[in-house]
Amino acid sequence: MSSTFGDRFRITTWGESHGAAIGAVIDGCPAGLSLDEADIQAFLDRRKPGQSRFTTKRQESDRVEILSGTFEGRTTGTPISLLIRNQDQRSRDYGNIASVYRPGHADYTYTQKYGFRDYRGGGRSSGRETIGRVAGGAIASHILKELGIELTTFAKAIGPVEVPEEEYRPEEIFQNKLYMPSNQRAAEAAAFLESMMKNLDSCGGVIECRVTGLPAGIGEPVFDKLDACLAKAILSIGAVKAVEFGDGVEAARRDGSQNNDPFFMENGSVRKKTNHAGGVLGGMSDGDTLILRAAVKPTPSIAQPQQTVTENGEDTELVIHGRHDPVIVPRAVVVVESMTALTLVDLLLLNMGSRMEHLKKIY
Amino acid sequence: MSSTFGDRFRITTWGESHGAAIGAVIDGCPAGLSLDEADIQAFLDRRKPGQSRFTTKRQESDRVEILSGTFEGRTTGTPISLLIRNQDQRSRDYGNIASVYRPGHADYTYTQKYGFRDYRGGGRSSGRETIGRVAGGAIASHILKELGIELTTFAKAIGPVEVPEEEYRPEEIFQNKLYMPSNQRAAEAAAFLESMMKNLDSCGGVIECRVTGLPAGIGEPVFDKLDACLAKAILSIGAVKAVEFGDGVEAARRDGSQNNDPFFMENGSVRKKTNHAGGVLGGMSDGDTLILRAAVKPTPSIAQPQQTVTENGEDTELVIHGRHDPVIVPRAVVVVESMTALTLVDLLLLNMGSRMEHLKKIY
Amino acid sequence: MSSTFGDRFRITTWGESHGAAIGAVIDGCPAGLSLDEADIQAFLDRRKPGQSRFTTKRQESDRVEILSGTFEGRTTGTPISLLIRNQDQRSRDYGNIASVYRPGHADYTYTQKYGFRDYRGGGRSSGRETIGRVAGGAIASHILKELGIELTTFAKAIGPVEVPEEEYRPEEIFQNKLYMPSNQRAAEAAAFLESMMKNLDSCGGVIECRVTGLPAGIGEPVFDKLDACLAKAILSIGAVKAVEFGDGVEAARRDGSQNNDPFFMENGSVRKKTNHAGGVLGGMSDGDTLILRAAVKPTPSIAQPQQTVTENGEDTELVIHGRHDPVIVPRAVVVVESMTALTLVDLLLLNMGSRMEHLKKIY
Amino acid sequence: MSSTFGDRFRITTWGESHGAAIGAVIDGCPAGLSLDEADIQAFLDRRKPGQSRFTTKRQESDRVEILSGTFEGRTTGTPISLLIRNQDQRSRDYGNIASVYRPGHADYTYTQKYGFRDYRGGGRSSGRETIGRVAGGAIASHILKELGIELTTFAKAIGPVEVPEEEYRPEEIFQNKLYMPSNQRAAEAAAFLESMMKNLDSCGGVIECRVTGLPAGIGEPVFDKLDACLAKAILSIGAVKAVEFGDGVEAARRDGSQNNDPFFMENGSVRKKTNHAGGVLGGMSDGDTLILRAAVKPTPSIAQPQQTVTENGEDTELVIHGRHDPVIVPRAVVVVESMTALTLVDLLLLNMGSRMEHLKKIY
Repeated sequence: MSSTFGDRFRITTWGESHGAAIGAVIDGCPAGLSLDEADIQAFLDRRKPGQSRFTTKRQESDRVEILSGTFEGRTTGTPISLLIRNQDQRSRDYGNIASVYRPGHADYTYTQKYGFRDYRGGGRSSGRETIGRVAGGAIASHILKELGIELTTFAKAIGPVEVPEEEYRPEEIFQNKLYMPSNQRAAEAAAFLESMMKNLDSCGGVIECRVTGLPAGIGEPVFDKLDACLAKAILSIGAVKAVEFGDGVEAARRDGSQNNDPFFMENGSVRKKTNHAGGVLGGMSDGDTLILRAAVKPTPSIAQPQQTVTENGEDTELVIHGRHDPVIVPRAVVVVESMTALTLVDLLLLNMGSRMEHLKKIY
Repeated sequence: MSSTFGDRFRITTWGESHGAAIGAVIDGCPAGLSLDEADIQAFLDRRKPGQSRFTTKRQESDRVEILSGTFEGRTTGTPISLLIRNQDQRSRDYGNIASVYRPGHADYTYTQKYGFRDYRGGGRSSGRETIGRVAGGAIASHILKELGIELTTFAKAIGPVEVPEEEYRPEEIFQNKLYMPSNQRAAEAAAFLESMMKNLDSCGGVIECRVTGLPAGIGEPVFDKLDACLAKAILSIGAVKAVEFGDGVEAARRDGSQNNDPFFMENGSVRKKTNHAGGVLGGMSDGDTLILRAAVKPTPSIAQPQQTVTENGEDTELVIHGRHDPVIVPRAVVVVESMTALTLVDLLLLNMGSRMEHLKKIY
Repeated sequence: MSSTFGDRFRITTWGESHGAAIGAVIDGCPAGLSLDEADIQAFLDRRKPGQSRFTTKRQESDRVEILSGTFEGRTTGTPISLLIRNQDQRSRDYGNIASVYRPGHADYTYTQKYGFRDYRGGGRSSGRETIGRVAGGAIASHILKELGIELTTFAKAIGPVEVPEEEYRPEEIFQNKLYMPSNQRAAEAAAFLESMMKNLDSCGGVIECRVTGLPAGIGEPVFDKLDACLAKAILSIGAVKAVEFGDGVEAARRDGSQNNDPFFMENGSVRKKTNHAGGVLGGMSDGDTLILRAAVKPTPSIAQPQQTVTENGEDTELVIHGRHDPVIVPRAVVVVESMTALTLVDLLLLNMGSRMEHLKKIY
Repeated sequence: MSSTFGDRFRITTWGESHGAAIGAVIDGCPAGLSLDEADIQAFLDRRKPGQSRFTTKRQESDRVEILSGTFEGRTTGTPISLLIRNQDQRSRDYGNIASVYRPGHADYTYTQKYGFRDYRGGGRSSGRETIGRVAGGAIASHILKELGIELTTFAKAIGPVEVPEEEYRPEEIFQNKLYMPSNQRAAEAAAFLESMMKNLDSCGGVIECRVTGLPAGIGEPVFDKLDACLAKAILSIGAVKAVEFGDGVEAARRDGSQNNDPFFMENGSVRKKTNHAGGVLGGMSDGDTLILRAAVKPTPSIAQPQQTVTENGEDTELVIHGRHDPVIVPRAVVVVESMTALTLVDLLLLNMGSRMEHLKKIY
């Protein structure tokens, strides 16, 4: 638990923001998958700082090293250990951060849980913890691709700027620094972010992930439903405050006659006329596009003075120095994709034992 | 996995809608908790059919029998086995249900996963599966109460009728059959449900749960965050399509300066001026009220003719007979409370090993 | 944990010796296995009391009822709940047992762990707890048989009477009440048991299990080795004090040149000239016969007066009344077989994800 | 599973014999334990090569680096990542090892499981995999020491040379290079090893571990018994073929009247007159010394020519070059101690939730 995710395909992440390194161990990866560091680096580069003027100035190249688990360019079935050295870990003056609880951060709760905390850059509650997830997600995505399953993830909204369905252009996602599926909306969002930075403020947004090619029947009924497992995966990402599938919160306001997706036959296959369900029925994939959305809160590190308390129980005013991302949504897009991919590979492996005939195919 | 939930406090549910019985085994319950069948029955009665005119006519008393795990009125630390016999399991004609996939149901996905399905009353995908969860939730709630932790759960919205915060009256929740914290809104919702029934249609709604008395620091950082674990628990309930914490989806539209909850001291304790976070920071409880909401889709079983396909791959029209709940929200309130309670007890047990000083208190 | 065994094929047992019932829930059973109560009853009958004059007189028919998880004679993939009502649970005078710690039993340790204990017939530490294991083992054996894997389990030794390899006759195992693979040795053992009963004493013995047809490569390297998982399974049976694989403790006294099993080719297959390893190399099956042995201690319930202490911390002398098995080995044979079968099915399911090519066979 | 051990105190090991590095991640360590690299290095030095003339000449300093999880000399409750770089990983000619299955090794079974294998130095089946276990065991032992629990582990037998109980001198264990509790027997064993090396042969032996200070009631009844969990831990070590508790295999030949350990009172405490049970009753510690023994097979790498087969299915003769330990028992002593310590800490954490009164002490 805690720092391990998954049952059959398991990732264990470790490392603090200003410790020596950050890393992950992936256990349960099937043997025979072609894999090298470039496959993983491509994912890490999507979340690393310095991609745009809306990200922290921290200098990190986030280069990954594979320490185990591959041989002659293929996975061997043994644990894959991934190491990313922290570069920007120089000793520094953490000032009042060390003794003051930052609002919206985990400083207070960490101290309550463990009796004290590693205050350097947020320690393990830093966004840098997600590096390990993304490294693991790269491997999971690689497996999915081999099975014909594709993930498309993007910023659906940044602050008040949202991309409506009719403007959705997936080919534009990688054409703008905000990973929005509309270059025009991305330009509007960038202007909004500039204004927020001027106000010493921050904003949130919405990330959406769509999965195509997923066979029907993936996810375990009852407690390990596909959507339940994905919900845990997505809400385990620091700033996420809500998760939705298909129509999500809107489903609560629909009539049954609107909300049910009628089945029909097309070229010998069962299809659905609509996809209010977002590709999941009874906790299992239904063969249609899986759709999930995560609501991300605004970055809590803002430069405005904030009221708070010290570790010694005194009211105080805090001013957070240094430059912080005014929005984390763009860099979190690949984190949502990674957690989704990790969950899907795990559930695909779990599902292999669902039928006696599957066992007989292998034994 | 699958039919087991929890790591230290584990519930395993079993049973189909029209099988011989439904049940649950709770393992990991601490010894020395006073417990009898009446404690559990009180919870089961909150979800059983026949409480109002908005529920199925199925005749079930849902009487629980404790088969193991208690001795002289106290839990012994061994597994608690709970049995609820199904009464309404007479052989019947399942008609076209047996060979047709009902829209919005799990018929198709079960068949894709396992190769065939128990079609009698939905088998294990029936709402009756939640009986075991509620029985376990009763025990979990009993433990929480011993530790001074209280849960308040209610229907926040039914269809378009919502109880705004300023009308919230928790004392009225048990005064109306819809478990709304406002008798007046409940009357409006009842009128709306009557109209839906006339239209042979159904509706959804929103369930909210608030937890007070939870100590700070509960929940495991990284993957087993308090909100992540709760999200899985809540989304494992059949008809839930979204889950939110605190301001939830609204947080995505807030500025950081609005969304951060300032800390202050009050009577020597750390408090928050606001609770946009919903009582969770960095995946751990912050000592404030924990607030979660589940969006519930409309009941998929509606009496209108629906387009669908047969198991043999032919387009067809389906009419579902029998009376079904036009909304499942009221009966699902106690299910949300149960899953929340199960999750909290599990995380409280997990947290016991967080500090060396805790070990020294016991050993 | 605790009362759940297995990772993919999971059994949860519950119930106390003198409670209302004993049972088990099996979760993770692949769909499509033909299964009825007779399959399970046949296994239960091998451990039930009253088979010979060397077993307790307790009257129990141990009839199993399948409450869920099958439909039209096949498993559905959902949890299989098995119920066995206790018949001999009449209220009785437990006398000094209630307040005295029986030597060699778990009375003292249960009390130390939980603060008190269910003293009726040993509660959950009774041998009756194994009923649930055997019921689950019947299902696991059924799966193994479908895959061409066969288990042969027997009493290799009872007290000083041992069946040497050259007298091993598997066809005689079911011909004597002690389940020894030699009717002649069984007769000697029976005579020995008569003498022990006259002396108000008890004895131990050795159980051996051999598995043929197991494909090579089953078991997970490192911590979940085939032999490691089996060792846990076997030592979780109450009275077992040691477990061995292949030459076992004798391997410690061998030279490497004797102990290594040379490989050779036979009809295009890799074979071993000897099987000192007992069918496991590096924690994985090697395609040869898997051989394990369990050393079982003498029944601790003996009719001789024994020195012990009371719950109140006073020295006392205890005489245990009632008739107890002078040896538990014969009835434990099927328990060893069941735990072995449960472990093997679990590891076969786990192994399905070991290669990318396996995933491509199914997806 | 697989490369993760433990439920609450979890260790994940990774790394191959001739890969870049070997390591471990320990998750679930309570916060506030003082810990530095020297604590861990002391354990690693007990297993590293080059301690005596009976070990491989491979040059490895096995220096550990702590990459995360500590702050200002104390554990923080977050994962502790440990890294040990391999020094002797130069490219080399693996000769026929690459295409031939060594008898007594895992070459064949790895290939059967995964389709191919990393043949360099045995890959992950190498004894170097235990480095991660020992590093984790050092931390676990540190926790146990804080709670007053001490482990004493030693070579009880090497080949035919055994230390009888009456010659047991624990103070001599660290005085000889074979870690035997008798310098005189160690000298005999060394002479025996010289003769084996002359014969190009190897031998096995027995390792014993004794634990004092363990409170009664540790271990979970039924499947996660103290002895069952330890058995799995010990048998997960490469060359172990049997595990025993207390009298072990001898218990099978005892009478009940001999084997039962009578209880008596001493200074207000419950004690046992004898300890045939080895400190475990009903799967829980009984407050007496815990005693376990592991039977270790002879090193399979011997310099004599051996018959075997190639990957292409041809009979061949193999001569293994290079110097190998003629016995692995001395270096495996600390591995047995480490696995025991890891198991005990895990079970101590699990036991914290056994009573409601424990929860009330912390919450």
